[in-house]
Amino acid sequence: MSNMQALSLIEPEAADAVAPCCPPLTERPFTADEAETAARMFKALGDPVRVRLFTAVASHEGGEACVCDISDVGVSQPTVSHHLKKLKEAGLLSSERRGTWVYYRVEPSVLAAMGKLLSFTPAAA
Amino acid sequence: MSNMQALSLIEPEAADAVAPCCPPLTERPFTADEAETAARMFKALGDPVRVRLFTAVASHEGGEACVCDISDVGVSQPTVSHHLKKLKEAGLLSSERRGTWVYYRVEPSVLAAMGKLLSFTPAAA
Repeated sequence: MSNMQALSLIEPEAADAVAPCCPPLTERPFTADEAETAARMFKALGDPVRVRLFTAVASHEGGEACVCDISDVGVSQPTVSHHLKKLKEAGLLSSERRGTWVYYRVEPSVLAAMGKLLSFTPAAA
Repeated sequence: MSNMQALSLIEPEAADAVAPCCPPLTERPFTADEAETAARMFKALGDPVRVRLFTAVASHEGGEACVCDISDVGVSQPTVSHHLKKLKEAGLLSSERRGTWVYYRVEPSVLAAMGKLLSFTPAAA
């Protein structure tokens, strides 16, 4: 599996959360299990600070950012840490300590799963 | 604007919620306003029952479903109504009464906004 290397950075329970999950949202009604997985991901992004942190990491060079790069979101450092922890628990970010700093990254498998969820062609208005 | 006809079914505050919002999640850090809008949408889908209802409507023929078509999600009718109301308040669904039944639909503008949020090319794993 080409994803194994990336996933090895994530704790097992987090890796479960981002396992390839769901068809596009418009394809068919989701099963209970699919809905649980998708809702967990959506819920983790259901907070403005977490959206700002997630997009800061996801858009950073190399898809990875030091916590020192992404803390400018208008809340205290403990609040930043709390929200980064929530994003990690949901499997959306992984982290690695290198020397003084902790680096966060968005797993390619997460982006692939999110992209698939919304990989429908919007109907013309 | 080609979206005006579709949007006319939504109350003004709901239409605000789905206004074209945000760049792809991986493009750049979101501003506070963009993060608020995106988080509102994600939060509305941060519940498994709401994901099941949303996908049931979105995948139904014509992108529209009678409440009688989509209530089979393992919860009581009042709970279904509660969650449909939350999806409407977030601007993800609109509704229209026709005779006995209320019909729900996903606005094309919502699908377009969601599609744009995730319109990045996932990096190869």
